[in-house]
Amino acid sequence: MRKDVLLSHASRLVNHGPTVLVTTEHQGRRNIMAAAWSMPVEFTPPRIAVVVDKKTFTSELLQASGRFALCLPVPALADLTYRVGSESGRDIDDGRDKFQRHGIDAFTGPLLGLPLVEGCCAWLELRRIAEPHSEQAYDTVFGEVVSAQADDRVFANGRWSFRADNAEWHTLHHLGAGAFAVPSQVVQGALLRP
Amino acid sequence: MRKDVLLSHASRLVNHGPTVLVTTEHQGRRNIMAAAWSMPVEFTPPRIAVVVDKKTFTSELLQASGRFALCLPVPALADLTYRVGSESGRDIDDGRDKFQRHGIDAFTGPLLGLPLVEGCCAWLELRRIAEPHSEQAYDTVFGEVVSAQADDRVFANGRWSFRADNAEWHTLHHLGAGAFAVPSQVVQGALLRP
Repeated sequence: MRKDVLLSHASRLVNHGPTVLVTTEHQGRRNIMAAAWSMPVEFTPPRIAVVVDKKTFTSELLQASGRFALCLPVPALADLTYRVGSESGRDIDDGRDKFQRHGIDAFTGPLLGLPLVEGCCAWLELRRIAEPHSEQAYDTVFGEVVSAQADDRVFANGRWSFRADNAEWHTLHHLGAGAFAVPSQVVQGALLRP
Repeated sequence: MRKDVLLSHASRLVNHGPTVLVTTEHQGRRNIMAAAWSMPVEFTPPRIAVVVDKKTFTSELLQASGRFALCLPVPALADLTYRVGSESGRDIDDGRDKFQRHGIDAFTGPLLGLPLVEGCCAWLELRRIAEPHSEQAYDTVFGEVVSAQADDRVFANGRWSFRADNAEWHTLHHLGAGAFAVPSQVVQGALLRP
């Protein structure tokens, strides 16, 4: 079930390098793309960097609106994730955007009203931090998280819990060409004295 | 067995969000730390961003030398990865650096001569790209990969292959507090027409 996540825990949602769906909306136009390249840069305030090619429709909506969302897809969304990462939302098909074209159910983000993808395991809304040089030179967009939610079957009390009995809610990690690794095992490191 | 990786494939090594060991060396002083926060920003040329707190000894050596390496630890190195991410190389113990203190075997990087950690599954040497604003504001260091190697039991022909029979060479993905997810399963997305 979807639950709010403390903003002080929001960066933990992407700490382990999951592939994300980036969603955007501006004046009634919306889009969705996949991004394998993101990382937290700060826990407090929760800030995240994500690579969004400046030529994309997502970049156009992100720049115009100053906001974007990250949704973390699960194994059942592997086809969709690969698909929306392989086509442009500019290529409108019969007036249908990528949500309509692929039958993607979206709900409305609580703070910024962004379209968030049903069936994911976590959702974050971010305000763009204006860093035109990083955006231009490296397609790297910085954002500050203003709302965070996660499915409490897999993320609760500020921690991911990847277990055999909740495998359908694990994250995806893009290896290339549509193959996604799933973090289905966990090892615990110990702070042993040398 | 360790094999060279084409530079055009180097960014694929960190595409899926692994935790890395950052190693540095300057005028005979060397250090190692763990970093959960890194991502590619470009395939060609291969460029990677990594978050290195500017107060760390690693940052001092990186800034002074203009170079750093990323080594990808495997499950057997989970304790070590957690440990070197939890203490500073500035706290020299009886004149021993963190490599000596923890008995870490290192070999010499082929292009920049950096200390690379034996027993990892991939190794990259990078030259720092000077971006003082990103470093100052977000602890985000950009680098260009100049050498890349991987263990061909798990990465070959430009692709990761995570299988049950090579589980000891899988990557680690930090969840927090020393718990690491291991990408031990793979799902293949299809480019289905909607």
